[in-house]
Amino acid sequence: MERETAQPQAISLDEAAQIAGEVKDLIKAGDEHSAWELLQGLHPADIGTILAGLPSKSRDALIQVMSPDTVVWILRQMNPVEAGRVAARLGSNILSFALDQLHPRQVLAVLDHLPILRAREVAPSLESLESTELFDYAPDTAGALMVGQLPTVRIDRLVSEARENLRLLEDIRQKLTHLFLVGDDGELAGQVSVVDLALAESDTPVRAIASPLVATVTVDTPARECARLQRHYNVTQLPVTQGGRLAGVILAEHLLGATIELDTRQMQQVANVPGETVGGPLLSSIRTRLPWLTINLGTTFLAAGTVALFESTLAQVVVLAAFLPVVAGQGGIGGTQTLTLIVRAIALGELVGIGARRLLAREALLGLLHGVWLGVLVAVIAMLWKQNPGLGLVLGLAMLGNMVIAGTVGAGVPLFLRRAGVDPAVSSAVVVTTFTDVFGFLLFLGIASAFIGLIT
Amino acid sequence: MERETAQPQAISLDEAAQIAGEVKDLIKAGDEHSAWELLQGLHPADIGTILAGLPSKSRDALIQVMSPDTVVWILRQMNPVEAGRVAARLGSNILSFALDQLHPRQVLAVLDHLPILRAREVAPSLESLESTELFDYAPDTAGALMVGQLPTVRIDRLVSEARENLRLLEDIRQKLTHLFLVGDDGELAGQVSVVDLALAESDTPVRAIASPLVATVTVDTPARECARLQRHYNVTQLPVTQGGRLAGVILAEHLLGATIELDTRQMQQVANVPGETVGGPLLSSIRTRLPWLTINLGTTFLAAGTVALFESTLAQVVVLAAFLPVVAGQGGIGGTQTLTLIVRAIALGELVGIGARRLLAREALLGLLHGVWLGVLVAVIAMLWKQNPGLGLVLGLAMLGNMVIAGTVGAGVPLFLRRAGVDPAVSSAVVVTTFTDVFGFLLFLGIASAFIGLIT
Repeated sequence: MERETAQPQAISLDEAAQIAGEVKDLIKAGDEHSAWELLQGLHPADIGTILAGLPSKSRDALIQVMSPDTVVWILRQMNPVEAGRVAARLGSNILSFALDQLHPRQVLAVLDHLPILRAREVAPSLESLESTELFDYAPDTAGALMVGQLPTVRIDRLVSEARENLRLLEDIRQKLTHLFLVGDDGELAGQVSVVDLALAESDTPVRAIASPLVATVTVDTPARECARLQRHYNVTQLPVTQGGRLAGVILAEHLLGATIELDTRQMQQVANVPGETVGGPLLSSIRTRLPWLTINLGTTFLAAGTVALFESTLAQVVVLAAFLPVVAGQGGIGGTQTLTLIVRAIALGELVGIGARRLLAREALLGLLHGVWLGVLVAVIAMLWKQNPGLGLVLGLAMLGNMVIAGTVGAGVPLFLRRAGVDPAVSSAVVVTTFTDVFGFLLFLGIASAFIGLIT
Repeated sequence: MERETAQPQAISLDEAAQIAGEVKDLIKAGDEHSAWELLQGLHPADIGTILAGLPSKSRDALIQVMSPDTVVWILRQMNPVEAGRVAARLGSNILSFALDQLHPRQVLAVLDHLPILRAREVAPSLESLESTELFDYAPDTAGALMVGQLPTVRIDRLVSEARENLRLLEDIRQKLTHLFLVGDDGELAGQVSVVDLALAESDTPVRAIASPLVATVTVDTPARECARLQRHYNVTQLPVTQGGRLAGVILAEHLLGATIELDTRQMQQVANVPGETVGGPLLSSIRTRLPWLTINLGTTFLAAGTVALFESTLAQVVVLAAFLPVVAGQGGIGGTQTLTLIVRAIALGELVGIGARRLLAREALLGLLHGVWLGVLVAVIAMLWKQNPGLGLVLGLAMLGNMVIAGTVGAGVPLFLRRAGVDPAVSSAVVVTTFTDVFGFLLFLGIASAFIGLIT
């Protein structure tokens, strides 16, 4: 009864952090064996997480004690995303060894987390990849997400045969919620749920307990669309077809994993750190962040150029310089608020039937209302601070104008990108804050120049 | 054979948008009946989405034709989050009627999406809420996420009895992946998967196909921790206990829903738009955004005050004003990149065993490296543009310093908040950009004042 051996229990993040600390201290003291004993009672997912968090020297010392087979066993039990993060930290020898024994889905996740040079170094030695067609499919498509096993039963058979087919799918059996029904020519004809299989008599025809398929995807369907189908239609597993025939199935846990990965990436893209994880190699962090920082430098010089246009005005009223960050900063925050909301709504498919014009008008109106409040507030503060009513007026007007621009641009940029067929998450933020900076300065210093008599 | 009636197929977002447009046109032309005919063939999730996207007048006209019962049927088929979004748009009469017939979980999701005033108006009339204890549990806890039905079987029974128990759970049967095993005193003693139930003989003792429980939560466990357990340990459904006894179960789809909601909220919090959805009432948008904008106004005045300290320097070298947005803007972007990464890593439990000091040092070092590159670049551009080597030097030094500050603060603020027990997603961004603004100006204008002889 191997299944009744005591399985380790879940622990909290705090407990995990505490054990990680003890393990680190033991290894520092040269006692890797006690460290490994401490870990052995834990769930593989926790061993892996703690392993990933160790300094590389300690990690290597510990792996010496654990044996490579144990490392592979741990990686196998983890979800692919976390396993990838752990494996990316392993030495090349043990990594090659581990990758050879993992499920191709996990191998892909691992390679995805490796710096390109290391992936090239490790990949050619992989035997497991030769036996799979996963590399035939573009990343972020249903083809790359699916497992190639086919949980099917012919539609004219009995429940007993469906059960037999389920039994044969040893690797993924526990992760299935449905078997797909196929007709004479291998075409999809519905599904039966495992729950109904559990309740039916053996001699019942599967047709009698069949339920219709709501969603089917092809190998080329983007992962984002698969995630949307799962969420929108409450689907647990998705059949994937190629040339009209069933080619594989996307399991619920891989759909969940894809959803979370896509969400993470989207959030990071809005903040301009595409696909980086904490604690990876420095060089890969620089490679992902520095290009964005450099592009952003260009946009700040656009803003600088705008300010420079008004040097003579600034020379007359130096105090204007102090208020530059106020107008631009508020616009930036307002624009980002709108942008975040719209990008998210697009990704979740919430904008069906809601016209772009209506959204633009709504956000512009919100900007106007916010602008009235903030404009009055900022005008009053500036008057009290600098005893200069003209300055207050100029500042208030610029604030009002820039908040309207922030709302319009914050909604307009992602909506325009969507219409143009570009993922609106990428680089929208840079464009929006460039607009709010440049127009903020233009409005503020422009109005100030026009009413220069009022403020000097 | 009711299950073999043709079930509508999934459609793409583009198709949904097109149908939504046609429906809108038909209703505008006064032909609600044809509009409803067009919708009838669709999956309820799509009817709901299109309904939510219609202008309120058109929606009301269409609902007149559909009958309230159909509306309830549609809401029932949708996932709770989307159903909440749709229901929040309905008139009060039909909303009260609908809520009375929904599952309490969905009712909570709907109320969650309503402005407080409307929720108060609708809630007292709800019969369904009297029969539930869901309101006893704080939102965002396991208690509020669970369904109260108990998918259990006594550990000393046979598979046949487990199947009978499964059959009796009509409402949630199709959503179950496991039955929980309970002992004599109602204590949890393991689980059996529905897959194993489907494969076992009727006279097998359930004990023989039992598998251990990895994670159990109590009614007070935060939803975020439940989502982490699911992801980290690859769990599909979680048992929820209260006082040592099983109180309910969190189903896989509700865990997924919770994960996505928490992710959404986290992302919106980083951008300071807590929990708003596109297209809700204007007043609730203002109520969520304006407080943040006002707080931010305070922080921009801190920045303004910093600039004002150096008015005499600015009066001597007006061109300095043009470069204010360059130093502050770069720091803001760099800080936000780091912040996003760390907040996300904390939420995903990736920081176990990775010391705060190591992360801080890493991000500060990255800031230094980025700062060297950006500093040289900005110095060269400033020299070429303004023919002023002293200005270039000052700008380059300030940029270098501010990028180090951006990295340190971007990592330090969320790590400090986590240690203080505060959710680091809330308001971190405002604090970080305030730091980078204030220190950016202080460094730039301070260095400029010190080397004023070099730049005039």
